[in-house]
Amino acid sequence: MSRPVDAAGEMLRRIMEEHLPAAPDTEPHLAAALAQAVASPGSLLRARAVLAAAQSHGLPEAAGTELACAVEYFHSASLLLDDLPCMDDASLRRGMPCVHRVHGDATAILAALALINRAHVLAGLAYAAYPAAIRVQALLLLDSTLGVSGLVGGQARDLRYGEQAGGRREAAGIAAAKTGALFRLALVLPALAGGPGPEEFRLLKRLALYWGQWYQACDDMKDLLATPAATGKDAGRDRALGRPSLALTLGPAAARRRIARLEAQLARTRSRLMQLGPQWDYLEQIPDVLSERGRVRAA
Amino acid sequence: MSRPVDAAGEMLRRIMEEHLPAAPDTEPHLAAALAQAVASPGSLLRARAVLAAAQSHGLPEAAGTELACAVEYFHSASLLLDDLPCMDDASLRRGMPCVHRVHGDATAILAALALINRAHVLAGLAYAAYPAAIRVQALLLLDSTLGVSGLVGGQARDLRYGEQAGGRREAAGIAAAKTGALFRLALVLPALAGGPGPEEFRLLKRLALYWGQWYQACDDMKDLLATPAATGKDAGRDRALGRPSLALTLGPAAARRRIARLEAQLARTRSRLMQLGPQWDYLEQIPDVLSERGRVRAA
Repeated sequence: MSRPVDAAGEMLRRIMEEHLPAAPDTEPHLAAALAQAVASPGSLLRARAVLAAAQSHGLPEAAGTELACAVEYFHSASLLLDDLPCMDDASLRRGMPCVHRVHGDATAILAALALINRAHVLAGLAYAAYPAAIRVQALLLLDSTLGVSGLVGGQARDLRYGEQAGGRREAAGIAAAKTGALFRLALVLPALAGGPGPEEFRLLKRLALYWGQWYQACDDMKDLLATPAATGKDAGRDRALGRPSLALTLGPAAARRRIARLEAQLARTRSRLMQLGPQWDYLEQIPDVLSERGRVRAA
Repeated sequence: MSRPVDAAGEMLRRIMEEHLPAAPDTEPHLAAALAQAVASPGSLLRARAVLAAAQSHGLPEAAGTELACAVEYFHSASLLLDDLPCMDDASLRRGMPCVHRVHGDATAILAALALINRAHVLAGLAYAAYPAAIRVQALLLLDSTLGVSGLVGGQARDLRYGEQAGGRREAAGIAAAKTGALFRLALVLPALAGGPGPEEFRLLKRLALYWGQWYQACDDMKDLLATPAATGKDAGRDRALGRPSLALTLGPAAARRRIARLEAQLARTRSRLMQLGPQWDYLEQIPDVLSERGRVRAA
């Protein structure tokens, strides 16, 4: 259902297939799980952002697609794991039965590991010809966005949210770590090639933060209001599992106002970056993706 | 029980603690799981091999410890995941309750991811100042040893072994992929710094293959014959779970002969490498670790 139909989406899907880890003797369930993870890759939001940034910041085409693929593999792996019974216990993802429901939990975990491993290698290869200073920045960015300060740490807090007082502040922190971190990776990783100055760095990180909070808030709304038929995944899971949800904490009306405010903050931050030079013009493409998601949110 | 008491072991344990992923707001279960993974690090076989190789091949000290730590983190992560209910469903590891039995499956998975992520970053940092050709070799080695051709692929075949005809050949292939791959990483990754020639490469890979098969065969014997009190982990799991086991396929007597043959092959390959130059003399240290394990095997 979520298969991209545009040229860029189709190209990205093909590249994700080409870079997919595969060996002649790959165990069939593992191979099938990996194929499923890229066959229906969703909106490819992050990969599109990486590609646009890579072009604008002068990365060679092959390096840009390697980075786009790497970020999308990290994302796909996180979904495989999030859906496991010991995490969100989901049954549907992108309109299809979750990988672990088809091939078992162990295979889903191993597929996620294969994607993560390949993603690190692709990110390293993409920057192989760049100066050491940029490569070290890229490595530290991978560490901070994917590790305990980012995706993994956010997921750990997400799972235990219901056990604590929680509240809006913790929910926002979790959204920043869990969802914002991958957006930060998608925005900053390709931009490193252009050697951004401190102010550009600061604005880019803020953009990722707003983007992550906005995206998570829309996702919370969908979980609360939409049907699986509309979104391709389970609904009502946040309440059932005691997960942080802006839509639940604030109520739908206030959550909608919060989303509108985040959209304004996103637009303002993007404008400020675009004033710093034409290399940031590609950020204007982001709201197109936003508004497409906005339609889902309004549904 | 398996805490190292020698100086090198204590130094490695301290370094593994220092490099451990941690953030001020790390969720307490995740932090505890990570601490447990390095508090009782086993024999540190792989890390010791990396350190010795790094010194001999001229890697700066900090880079050597980063690589040793990276390889040991990859190993620790694989144990956290192997022990999960959906894989080997173990209860004991290194004489302590498994991480997932204390903190839950989700936390064990997230701790493994945090270790893997940090390990990739450490490996990248260790080689940051080296020429692109060596860095690309290191990346491709990480890909082949950890991905579907190595550790992940071997584990996937291991889990499905009981469903198929299996047999000795498949069991040996699984041992090579699952156990041999991490030994290959430990032997080859630090050796890349010295720019090994094709013959050295070939012998080094063969050494890793024999080492992996030898180690796996000893492990199979322990699983069959030893008690949890002697080994610090569950026993009799291979038979219960239908896993490949040389000790089960051949019987203990023939398996002991096979182990002796592998030891001879290991010694021969090592000698041939040592004839190629003094930079390979450190390989002589490996049998010390071997014979220590041999004592466990005889128990």
